[in-house]
Amino acid sequence: MAHQDPLVIFTPSGKRGRFPVGTPILQAARQLGVDLDSVCGGRGICSKCQITPAYGEFPKHGVTVAEGALSDWNTVEERYKSKRGMIEGRRLGCQAQVQRDVVIDVPPESQVHKQVVRKRAEARQITMNPSVKLFYVEVVEPDMHDPSGDMERLADALKVQWNINNVQADLHILQGLQKALRKGEWKVTCAVHLSDHNNPPRIMHIWPGYYDGTIYGLAVDLGSTTIAAHLCDLQSGEVVASSGIMNPQIRFGEDLMSRVSYSMMNPGGALEMTRVVRDGMNALFAQLTGDVGVDRSLIVDAVIVCNPVMHHLFVGIDPYELGQAPFALATSNALDLRAADLDLEIHPAAHVYILPCIAGHVGADAAAVALSEAPNRSADLMLVVDVGTNAEILLGNTERVLACSSPTGPAFEGAQISSGQRAAPGAIERVVIDPASKEPRFRVIGSDLWSDDPGFAEAIATTGVTGICGSGIIEVVAEMRMAGLLDASGLIGSAEQTGTGRCFPDGRTNSYLLWDQSAEGGPKITVTNGDIRAIQMAKAALYSGARLLMDKFGVDAVDRIVLAGAFGAHISPLHAMVLGMIPDCPLDKVTSAGNAAGTGARIALLNLDARTEIEETVRRIHKVETAIEPRFQEHFINASAIPNAVEPFPELALVTTLPEPSFNTGGEGGDGTRRRRRRD
Amino acid sequence: MAHQDPLVIFTPSGKRGRFPVGTPILQAARQLGVDLDSVCGGRGICSKCQITPAYGEFPKHGVTVAEGALSDWNTVEERYKSKRGMIEGRRLGCQAQVQRDVVIDVPPESQVHKQVVRKRAEARQITMNPSVKLFYVEVVEPDMHDPSGDMERLADALKVQWNINNVQADLHILQGLQKALRKGEWKVTCAVHLSDHNNPPRIMHIWPGYYDGTIYGLAVDLGSTTIAAHLCDLQSGEVVASSGIMNPQIRFGEDLMSRVSYSMMNPGGALEMTRVVRDGMNALFAQLTGDVGVDRSLIVDAVIVCNPVMHHLFVGIDPYELGQAPFALATSNALDLRAADLDLEIHPAAHVYILPCIAGHVGADAAAVALSEAPNRSADLMLVVDVGTNAEILLGNTERVLACSSPTGPAFEGAQISSGQRAAPGAIERVVIDPASKEPRFRVIGSDLWSDDPGFAEAIATTGVTGICGSGIIEVVAEMRMAGLLDASGLIGSAEQTGTGRCFPDGRTNSYLLWDQSAEGGPKITVTNGDIRAIQMAKAALYSGARLLMDKFGVDAVDRIVLAGAFGAHISPLHAMVLGMIPDCPLDKVTSAGNAAGTGARIALLNLDARTEIEETVRRIHKVETAIEPRFQEHFINASAIPNAVEPFPELALVTTLPEPSFNTGGEGGDGTRRRRRRD
Repeated sequence: MAHQDPLVIFTPSGKRGRFPVGTPILQAARQLGVDLDSVCGGRGICSKCQITPAYGEFPKHGVTVAEGALSDWNTVEERYKSKRGMIEGRRLGCQAQVQRDVVIDVPPESQVHKQVVRKRAEARQITMNPSVKLFYVEVVEPDMHDPSGDMERLADALKVQWNINNVQADLHILQGLQKALRKGEWKVTCAVHLSDHNNPPRIMHIWPGYYDGTIYGLAVDLGSTTIAAHLCDLQSGEVVASSGIMNPQIRFGEDLMSRVSYSMMNPGGALEMTRVVRDGMNALFAQLTGDVGVDRSLIVDAVIVCNPVMHHLFVGIDPYELGQAPFALATSNALDLRAADLDLEIHPAAHVYILPCIAGHVGADAAAVALSEAPNRSADLMLVVDVGTNAEILLGNTERVLACSSPTGPAFEGAQISSGQRAAPGAIERVVIDPASKEPRFRVIGSDLWSDDPGFAEAIATTGVTGICGSGIIEVVAEMRMAGLLDASGLIGSAEQTGTGRCFPDGRTNSYLLWDQSAEGGPKITVTNGDIRAIQMAKAALYSGARLLMDKFGVDAVDRIVLAGAFGAHISPLHAMVLGMIPDCPLDKVTSAGNAAGTGARIALLNLDARTEIEETVRRIHKVETAIEPRFQEHFINASAIPNAVEPFPELALVTTLPEPSFNTGGEGGDGTRRRRRRD
Repeated sequence: MAHQDPLVIFTPSGKRGRFPVGTPILQAARQLGVDLDSVCGGRGICSKCQITPAYGEFPKHGVTVAEGALSDWNTVEERYKSKRGMIEGRRLGCQAQVQRDVVIDVPPESQVHKQVVRKRAEARQITMNPSVKLFYVEVVEPDMHDPSGDMERLADALKVQWNINNVQADLHILQGLQKALRKGEWKVTCAVHLSDHNNPPRIMHIWPGYYDGTIYGLAVDLGSTTIAAHLCDLQSGEVVASSGIMNPQIRFGEDLMSRVSYSMMNPGGALEMTRVVRDGMNALFAQLTGDVGVDRSLIVDAVIVCNPVMHHLFVGIDPYELGQAPFALATSNALDLRAADLDLEIHPAAHVYILPCIAGHVGADAAAVALSEAPNRSADLMLVVDVGTNAEILLGNTERVLACSSPTGPAFEGAQISSGQRAAPGAIERVVIDPASKEPRFRVIGSDLWSDDPGFAEAIATTGVTGICGSGIIEVVAEMRMAGLLDASGLIGSAEQTGTGRCFPDGRTNSYLLWDQSAEGGPKITVTNGDIRAIQMAKAALYSGARLLMDKFGVDAVDRIVLAGAFGAHISPLHAMVLGMIPDCPLDKVTSAGNAAGTGARIALLNLDARTEIEETVRRIHKVETAIEPRFQEHFINASAIPNAVEPFPELALVTTLPEPSFNTGGEGGDGTRRRRRRD
């Protein structure tokens, strides 16, 4: 047999090829298309190309790897290891050269397109492919005989050394380029914003020599009530810090339509709200970066998701048209703007990507949920509900996806509820009412103890029990219904009707006493019949939206339900179904996706392809406008009652065996009947 | 013969085709690719599509056109004519419909790609193809059932109605879009910045309804000493106004190197100079637009040409590296920047295009000269000299083009000359010295009379005679040489040697008295031997640069010489050749191109293809660096003498028959000999 070059086999890719003795592993990897990272281009500086040679017999690969398969550990590796440390057994791929047949493992952290692990088991992983990457280059020095600008020689270097064609530079780069090149002795590290659909790659920042630090991106969920942001490492994909603040626009109106009204009533009002929300975002970014000691100018990319009104107010568009039919968006496509144009105090050349809007009422936040939960990739028919002040609802599978939004109002967030409050320490978040004694027990945010656990009083000594948050109000209403304190029409029974003194007359209707510290000068927390009505309206809106999409899809049931939104993360699926917030579905098929909009923003931040994907998906999503659908009103009326049972759940048999109460005394409306929601 | 559709023949293009009866002429033109303008897309609003039907026999075309070949004059045409007027015989191409065979003349002003006539006979015309054009569109109204943003529907309209694909919008457009669309009842006029190499088309401005006005562009020649700008109508190509101011950077140094020094010696000096020159440009733009009553925000495009130091200072790059070998430019490619980023107070979304630089000493101004004079398109070997503080020299033909710059210094602009001054009223610009009497006569700027004409004293009463400008000093030195007042080494003879009392002792050498009003308290204008030396140095630098390029090209003579630069416009080619500023060349082959750099800027402003062309040309121009060429020094020394004759010019026979004087008394240097410049 003729002499053959040594065989190099890469794992986990399984790619293999023969290379001459002396070929660096990095070079072999590149030639085979193996995903092995490098910022310095093989110059032994960045250490991103670490690999682990495997020794021994590999019958699967048909090779035996002996000592000496790679060239000896060299001084570059020794210097790196002594300065920075390196895991035992690792080699630098640019230094280690092939000597004999070898099996090379590329550890996950050495892959460019590494996977960022998401916590939920059902969630797909994020593949790293951010819009901004670092490239170290050596630039040819200027020559009088062959004059060309420093920038042109840098562009040549990026082309030759990294295959980046037609790179452009922002003005500030041209302004600082000559000093950086000379300070770095013609070696620089460039942060390059890679091509989006329309624009060539752009150099955003230059460091003299090799830049050994990190660059960051922001994934921002700009909600009507809160602004939440993740600061992400754009190389590892890790979330370095997360934080949130109240949206300072709240002072112009709690809900979106009151902000739209504010802008209509006050000349310059929209501008003022734009300024305020941008200021708020800058404060949030300052806090986020301050917490972890990161220079804000190292934030080179940002992705923002938001509802259409916040979208327009943030971008600086008067939301006037969104306040009235036909709810025309100024623009529905994804936007790629400059941070400086939006007054964001991050790297001035940073781009800000805003996901596309689906419709005038279904925004970039819903698009982000679609990206995160991907109903369009699901074989099962999947209902995704993003619960907030407006509920965004998606229904679909690989075949097609429908979307609508439904005006649930702020009741689910604890607003318009007599003892309601935002989710904060001291707020009741979980409630159980004993069906026999009608006595409640509950838990508050900030403590793991139930109110009847020993030590509860001490545990809540600092916060007290201050009110009921959104998830708490859903549980208490559902529990009241299950305990027979509430009839199907939503009326609270009297003490006589219910047999508990916790039900007491309160105006023309009754209320239920949940917690009473008034004797000690503390709060008295009750559930009034007005609270029940608010929740009924909200849940009916939510349910009707979902139901409308099901009509349009031509189905009576869904296979899976995903509850998204910061609030969705805390809803008990059981109670939501008892309440009739969501259509019936096997309980183990109801999951919470947490802040799926924020996750969608993070996916779009870390993976350029995801942006293209969601733009394409949004183009294909069919939008249903609830405001003009007669069936929405019909569903809404039908859905205002509270079910007396949830068919698929034998654990609720207790409830179903209780006599169906009716507390209608003629003092308040409510038809007291409930049509069956399924197959009606 | 079967029935045939009527034949439509367009002139001057000669394009022809058959169209069904009732086809509007505009539609026929579009189908045949005839260049017929329209902003409103055939809706009878813009009147840009005016055509003239020709009636009678056309044997050349083989048709006879009778009355009734077009549909009758209609109400749209009548309304337009009564409101705006229309030339007799003209029709609107979108209204007049084909009835029978017809010959249609498209007048120049109805062509999109019309030619802008340049004054000089030898100059090629500019074809209109500006980067910003107006498009009137009708946009589909929003529909709740099929939600899409207003911007997306506008983009669709531009695509369907104008074939403009993938149009983008600046943030300010999105911010104002909804109001504009509604105000214009879903009809708007868009100013679209059409695709350059790298970027998709962008909407820059939107007017509700049909915008009946003009958009403008600026062509700016940003010189070390003066800033000159043309305000151009981007639809007709006409220069609406031209103006110039002194470059306010002069206070940091008259010449470029002193400005570079200022930046080196003063921290923040470069920034200060950047601010000052931008302020100056804004002042100039304000003046230009104010003069003609144009709103500055209607300036939607600008092209700037300048030397490399001004380029860097304007763009905000420290020119430090240009002050020393290897004279590295920060960037040599053409730049496409945003006016707002350059603090220019024109339309904030206007782009600013800066032509490419050829080398560290040969800037975008030289590129503009190359664009205007196009040596690369010349079959003749063409020498183009842009005379200023630095001379830019181009030599070439269709085969290849060489370029260099030569440090002539400011003598040609009247600086460093004892009685020198800038070209302004009162400055001597033309001089004749009688070879027999040695008496001078001259003309000053602001008067057409010669100094020995009757009425001269009255004509100059307001300005007086204040000094000698650049072209005057060249003429007087050349005339002194021709009159035998000056020897070949550049020494002025004494009264005895020359036989005229106008030559008088002045320190260690002699001076020549040109004008004396000292008795009346006026100026005494003389030419000193120091003045002669300054001119000798300047012309030697210029000549040596040209000669160096000729060496590199391997030739001893050129076919044509073009003198460019504001100053070049006033140089007498005869005197320039007597002085030895330029190589010998038949006098009728020496022309002046005026401000060719400014013209180049105007071409690039009005024609996008010209930008691509000059970028390509500059890439192919071979740059010669005078500073490191030993032959440049050699040429320089040889070129300091002043020729005693100019061979090809029999009209100078008078001079050549005079005895060759030599005034060297040992009191001053100069070798007194002159090597022949040709074939030496």
